[in-house]
Amino acid sequence: METSRQNESQPSKETLEVGKKLVELCKRGDNMKAIDWLYAENIESQEAAAMPGMPAQMRGIEAIRKKNKEWIEQMEVHSMDVAGPFPHGDRFAVHYKMDVSEKQSGKRYQMEEVALYTVANGKIVKEEFFYMM
Amino acid sequence: METSRQNESQPSKETLEVGKKLVELCKRGDNMKAIDWLYAENIESQEAAAMPGMPAQMRGIEAIRKKNKEWIEQMEVHSMDVAGPFPHGDRFAVHYKMDVSEKQSGKRYQMEEVALYTVANGKIVKEEFFYMM
Repeated sequence: METSRQNESQPSKETLEVGKKLVELCKRGDNMKAIDWLYAENIESQEAAAMPGMPAQMRGIEAIRKKNKEWIEQMEVHSMDVAGPFPHGDRFAVHYKMDVSEKQSGKRYQMEEVALYTVANGKIVKEEFFYMM
Repeated sequence: METSRQNESQPSKETLEVGKKLVELCKRGDNMKAIDWLYAENIESQEAAAMPGMPAQMRGIEAIRKKNKEWIEQMEVHSMDVAGPFPHGDRFAVHYKMDVSEKQSGKRYQMEEVALYTVANGKIVKEEFFYMM
């Protein structure tokens, strides 16, 4: 028990491997492949806030696929910076900075957020998004 | 109970206020003031990994003051970018990117990390650092 508690915050090789793959795929715009390869079936997804038509908390890989597909359909990405992964035990963080436009309105703005991913058994079991409203 | 669970991931005004002040002070290099103003007495500090002379887990504001003072004494900061705060409920994340030199060896390198802060009763009660070794 003592040894595992001491190692709680040691970087995990598995976490680093999953994190590197996620960042690599996101940099290429391959977000849907990242979900297919790296997300657990019962993944938990938590936004910083609820928004119209999208609850803050969602569970299950199909719901997350749908959320991502809708985002890709609605938004045009002019540029995206992805920094990371930044690991800590069984979690890793990623910093995203994007220049986007809403396809429908043409409204253009910068988005910046930190995502915190929790890894178990080689898959991402939780994603939490941190951003200003 | 239900209402508080629904609000779990809603951004908290207090968290945002503490986060904005921390980022403001860090951008000015006023890290010691950030500790004085914003850290709880029994703050928990978790590094991504233990290092020689510095355990991964530390507790208590004096220990954290000492850790920070030693870092300021040993390192020269050429430039620092601070992005954030990025809030989520009672936590907020900050992304740091620094160009530093070790005063003793002259060795110069870039450091990049994400810090995750937990807020309770208007103070930071936990800080967790995420970085690649």
